[in-house]
Amino acid sequence: MKIESKTMHFTSPLYLESGRILEPYEIVYETYGELDEEKSNAILLCHALSGSHHAAGFYENDRKPGWWDAMIGPGKALDTDRFFVICSNVIGSCFGSTGPMSPVYPGEEPYRLRFPVVTVKDMIRAQRQLLSRMGIHRLRAIIGGSMGGMQALQFAVDYPNFAQTVIPLAATYATRPWVIAFNKVAVEAIRRDPRFKNGNYDRDAFSEDGLDGLAIGRIAGHISYLSPESMDSKFGRNYVATDGLFELFGRYEVERYMEYNTNNFSRIFDPLSYLYIVKAINTFNLSRGYDSLYEAVKRIRADLHLISFSGDYLFFPHEMEHLYRMMEREGRNCTYHCIDSDYGHDAFLVETEKFEHIVKDILKEG
Amino acid sequence: MKIESKTMHFTSPLYLESGRILEPYEIVYETYGELDEEKSNAILLCHALSGSHHAAGFYENDRKPGWWDAMIGPGKALDTDRFFVICSNVIGSCFGSTGPMSPVYPGEEPYRLRFPVVTVKDMIRAQRQLLSRMGIHRLRAIIGGSMGGMQALQFAVDYPNFAQTVIPLAATYATRPWVIAFNKVAVEAIRRDPRFKNGNYDRDAFSEDGLDGLAIGRIAGHISYLSPESMDSKFGRNYVATDGLFELFGRYEVERYMEYNTNNFSRIFDPLSYLYIVKAINTFNLSRGYDSLYEAVKRIRADLHLISFSGDYLFFPHEMEHLYRMMEREGRNCTYHCIDSDYGHDAFLVETEKFEHIVKDILKEG
Repeated sequence: MKIESKTMHFTSPLYLESGRILEPYEIVYETYGELDEEKSNAILLCHALSGSHHAAGFYENDRKPGWWDAMIGPGKALDTDRFFVICSNVIGSCFGSTGPMSPVYPGEEPYRLRFPVVTVKDMIRAQRQLLSRMGIHRLRAIIGGSMGGMQALQFAVDYPNFAQTVIPLAATYATRPWVIAFNKVAVEAIRRDPRFKNGNYDRDAFSEDGLDGLAIGRIAGHISYLSPESMDSKFGRNYVATDGLFELFGRYEVERYMEYNTNNFSRIFDPLSYLYIVKAINTFNLSRGYDSLYEAVKRIRADLHLISFSGDYLFFPHEMEHLYRMMEREGRNCTYHCIDSDYGHDAFLVETEKFEHIVKDILKEG
Repeated sequence: MKIESKTMHFTSPLYLESGRILEPYEIVYETYGELDEEKSNAILLCHALSGSHHAAGFYENDRKPGWWDAMIGPGKALDTDRFFVICSNVIGSCFGSTGPMSPVYPGEEPYRLRFPVVTVKDMIRAQRQLLSRMGIHRLRAIIGGSMGGMQALQFAVDYPNFAQTVIPLAATYATRPWVIAFNKVAVEAIRRDPRFKNGNYDRDAFSEDGLDGLAIGRIAGHISYLSPESMDSKFGRNYVATDGLFELFGRYEVERYMEYNTNNFSRIFDPLSYLYIVKAINTFNLSRGYDSLYEAVKRIRADLHLISFSGDYLFFPHEMEHLYRMMEREGRNCTYHCIDSDYGHDAFLVETEKFEHIVKDILKEG
């Protein structure tokens, strides 16, 4: 499958929810499949906290494909023989779209902490501009998991007539303090890391090993993406063979996993981007700007298909179910699937075989 | 109520599970009530990770009483008109019993990382020595929550004829990777804190504000001690009034709570002690040293009364229930109570009104 990774430049301002503006800005994105002549077959795919616009296929020399490769391609759930799938990198990210390490126009100095706080509302506003520029004024569907699911929901509320179908996975209608607390580990670990220098860090100072604070925060993240059950089956109480049980820093397998994954992550992800995106997740509240959650949800015109995972310890199934009940009361076209899974929150990334048929069915008609 | 805080010195070695020894060592403890002439009315109370031997009553000038004051006193569940309650500080702690910051005999230099790894088995072995020295060779009961519950269980298995009744609360039979992962945040945050200096820290360097790494690790701890539901009712999505929603470091109430509590904690708790006690929790496995969990549990001769909390996200109720089923199959005297609570793991400290009557009933006879 051919991957097209592109950058769109915008010279007009992006008006943010905070009242501030971003000007100019760029959005990087990838597309899979072909846009039809009527421009009616586009699907917007939204990524999660640590994700990017690289959702499918392989870059040269890469061992791992994009983050939802199992879902995107000819004959797959997001069938590229039928659909034109667009995945754009959110603003605030460190993977190409304008973020805190982007230069402040017209100079070369990065924003750093002068970068404005962006919200999920702002992320989809930017995506809306991208679609406009591509001449796309109607989407066949919007789909995404976790923060991607938040974007899908926010899109459905803010632009009711834009998408025919909206499919949020493993998300919620408003971030709960439980999630904010997990994120707080990262916020404090990054802030208090001496090499963070209040945002004025020199990347070279931790280019090889990454910022400790980000790695530490990411451990808390990984806990919330898994579940007690998935950790039992992945690691059990196994001890790293070369470590001694009675060594203070001897490690269980789960500890080695955490070290390995979080160190790798902190090497590639930017600490400021992490803070900004975590802030966008924390501030996510579908009812903000509307009189109530009910008033927000009532705006939705798209067919809404909610998918949650029984073993999700970050966004619990009953949160999506709450939305479903609201839609049901309003007599709207809405379905709710709770996928039986012990994996935890990351099931939306890992156990695609458990729900790809649902997505396929939803997209069968129309 | 009169509080007696005492120190017992031991010059004979404490043989540890690791094969190492601790010699000499000290145990600090408090007692509440009076030991009867037959020395038959003693109850051993075991504390949790951040606890100490100060379980009840007020020290001079203290605004807060000991950690289980609601449970200990005349007419209370642990009725000091009837019982002699002993709470000792675990070895490895920073509250008086021998720990990593204690001097290596005969010098003045603290152990630091030379301190041996101690386990829950070692903790109760030390407590057993304390009881021996007090002339107590039989306990009316052992009770404790969280790591205290682990000690109670381990005592029941290792010294089957010592206690008549054993009451573990909010505990488990073996620490799961889920819990080890939460602890890993603290381990990494402390280790990577530049002021930790591989254990050779100068306490004066962070005497005022505490070690950042410990505070950060403690945030992860607090998440695991609460629950999504208790955070909803405690904090909701409330924002700290003086902070701006669109300020990057503006805070939700849950974030302020985490900052406040964890900073306070890191001011009073020693980072090395934290690492050692966390290690004891991680290595807790009732079956270690026995052929199987079943073989370990079969040794228990005490009446076992297991209490768990429905909203405990650290040690889940089904873990205690698993033990109960084993005891039941063996036809042993065992009860299991799952207290209905949304509070989370810390319910054993906070919601004593929900289970004090159960403890009272258990201790009524005999």
